[in-house]
Amino acid sequence: MWREISRYGRKLVQYGLTHSHFGNISVRTGDGLIITRSGSMLDEIDENMVVHCLLEGEDCFDTIASSETIVHRRIYRQTSALAIIHVHSPYAVALSLLSKEDYLVPRDLESKYYLHRIPLVTGGIGSEELAVNLAAALSQHKAAIVRGHGTFAVGKILDEAYVNTCSVEHACKVHYLCTVPVSTVYTFF
Amino acid sequence: MWREISRYGRKLVQYGLTHSHFGNISVRTGDGLIITRSGSMLDEIDENMVVHCLLEGEDCFDTIASSETIVHRRIYRQTSALAIIHVHSPYAVALSLLSKEDYLVPRDLESKYYLHRIPLVTGGIGSEELAVNLAAALSQHKAAIVRGHGTFAVGKILDEAYVNTCSVEHACKVHYLCTVPVSTVYTFF
Amino acid sequence: MWREISRYGRKLVQYGLTHSHFGNISVRTGDGLIITRSGSMLDEIDENMVVHCLLEGEDCFDTIASSETIVHRRIYRQTSALAIIHVHSPYAVALSLLSKEDYLVPRDLESKYYLHRIPLVTGGIGSEELAVNLAAALSQHKAAIVRGHGTFAVGKILDEAYVNTCSVEHACKVHYLCTVPVSTVYTFF
Amino acid sequence: MWREISRYGRKLVQYGLTHSHFGNISVRTGDGLIITRSGSMLDEIDENMVVHCLLEGEDCFDTIASSETIVHRRIYRQTSALAIIHVHSPYAVALSLLSKEDYLVPRDLESKYYLHRIPLVTGGIGSEELAVNLAAALSQHKAAIVRGHGTFAVGKILDEAYVNTCSVEHACKVHYLCTVPVSTVYTFF
Repeated sequence: MWREISRYGRKLVQYGLTHSHFGNISVRTGDGLIITRSGSMLDEIDENMVVHCLLEGEDCFDTIASSETIVHRRIYRQTSALAIIHVHSPYAVALSLLSKEDYLVPRDLESKYYLHRIPLVTGGIGSEELAVNLAAALSQHKAAIVRGHGTFAVGKILDEAYVNTCSVEHACKVHYLCTVPVSTVYTFF
Repeated sequence: MWREISRYGRKLVQYGLTHSHFGNISVRTGDGLIITRSGSMLDEIDENMVVHCLLEGEDCFDTIASSETIVHRRIYRQTSALAIIHVHSPYAVALSLLSKEDYLVPRDLESKYYLHRIPLVTGGIGSEELAVNLAAALSQHKAAIVRGHGTFAVGKILDEAYVNTCSVEHACKVHYLCTVPVSTVYTFF
Repeated sequence: MWREISRYGRKLVQYGLTHSHFGNISVRTGDGLIITRSGSMLDEIDENMVVHCLLEGEDCFDTIASSETIVHRRIYRQTSALAIIHVHSPYAVALSLLSKEDYLVPRDLESKYYLHRIPLVTGGIGSEELAVNLAAALSQHKAAIVRGHGTFAVGKILDEAYVNTCSVEHACKVHYLCTVPVSTVYTFF
Repeated sequence: MWREISRYGRKLVQYGLTHSHFGNISVRTGDGLIITRSGSMLDEIDENMVVHCLLEGEDCFDTIASSETIVHRRIYRQTSALAIIHVHSPYAVALSLLSKEDYLVPRDLESKYYLHRIPLVTGGIGSEELAVNLAAALSQHKAAIVRGHGTFAVGKILDEAYVNTCSVEHACKVHYLCTVPVSTVYTFF
């Protein structure tokens, strides 16, 4: 399983969806989840950089697991997700800071069709509040953006969570590019 | 042939012209076309991720082929194209949403010379209407942009369709950067 | 020598300085130059994708060499350059279309120090006029931008021409980002 | 040690944090520092492209070491840093030219939490003044931006300096995207 996590971690960094240590990836197991360790470099994950935690309650592995394990755990308990990817993709973060709405409605057709709308939720990093808000949002949506922080996307398999992660950033980049005011006036230096 | 499709699929994702599953690639054969499967990860195409469909009428392979096979099929029937690439390159999508014209006229010299102008067409994803509009546009142009959706580019070989795909995004990026209003006023936070 | 050309061709595409077929690379030899072939995919150059042309007059190899060989030839005749890289880097092209000046003055310290100022020249693709203008500009500068088209950078070795190519795009990107009007007002959708 | 430096040099270029020759990387040793050579291509560092210099005073190796060795040396003498990365990441450079403040306050939650605020310092490239200002700033912060030039980030190990380098550029990109004025008016060509 760490090989799949490693493969998607590498893609996420290579294609600019996050950088260095920031973000985390998990997959549901029978009684728990396998999640990237705290401080793991996402483009270089090996078998030592993932950890197994139980789904119910905290356990000793929480000390080395991602600090957002609490959020992943609650999403698995409250939704049908079997894989979760969290990253700090830049256009999603920027739009979430600019928007005052509760949802982002994509402008491009594919994202409209595929994602419908993307909830914007709030809550401190790794907090109970964030866990509650994200679990609620992700029980009905493929992905959500934590305001000023990053995206959480779910799927049955990592491939699906990855596609959703990419789709949100694509929707946000197109949205951003379309909203910047444009004109035909070429007054320049 | 899947090796060529795989090679260009990898380039398309690596160089930011599309992401994850979104987009499709096909090549004309004697009586049909080889096209990427529905849901295939474009940077990891292997021989199992392409499928052969007949050119005339639908066949059983349509169920696993890209949902836009209908569009590829009609383009092959009505134009001289022997290879087609469809991607969701971000600047092309954004410009197509901002423009109210039927054509985009590139501003940079190379794109002006090479592409002349780029038709903007409409139609739902995988619809008959889109197939008709694209086939008409691509019988006279190297590439077209589906408004709010992405690009379709044609060629005699995949290399040519790839060059056209890249050229449209380059033309759109330069166009976009030149149209954003600019000034010498530096009022900042 | 094709190995060095191939190595820098790959870097140019990988790092977003140009795409697909667009651009060309040459190195001076005793009586001529080795240059990329017309239509060569710059991230996949092998020994068959470069050609040797004589410096004085045209020769039979001109038919398969880059269509901008005329420009490279004149630069070698009139300047001390021993290597030339031409690409279509997007921020350089966009700024050259927006600016009405004859020179671009970088805003970042390193580019100011390293490039001083970057001449903007005109002339049709592969034309005698462009060859004359570029040779004049590059006899006194490390690189120049052809308005609406792309950059030409020179060096004693390819490494130097590559550094100059990257530096111009960096200078242009920073310049562009600094010139877009900015404010603290957050009125948004 | 050159292998670690090489590994991070490659990441820095691949992920767009700097380009070609620009930037430098060092690691503290018992009595000195290992630093990249002047003019070393950062994505291709091998054992010949790093050099060992003493911490106190200049020595003969200074002639081939990075021209910013003076800055690294002073940072090691005055702070607890054991590794330093300097790059010219574009959004950090652009923001530092636009801002008139002494500090940049990130807008995204993660950067706020992780970096608090990012000092903007001044001083000529490789100057004593810059060395003094950076050493002061980096004794209390994980990273600083030299106005119009680039970032310096510190850490106990290269991994940490790399994470800080990426975090500053992420914070600056999000900040930049949020500060560009935006509206819902779609007047376009």
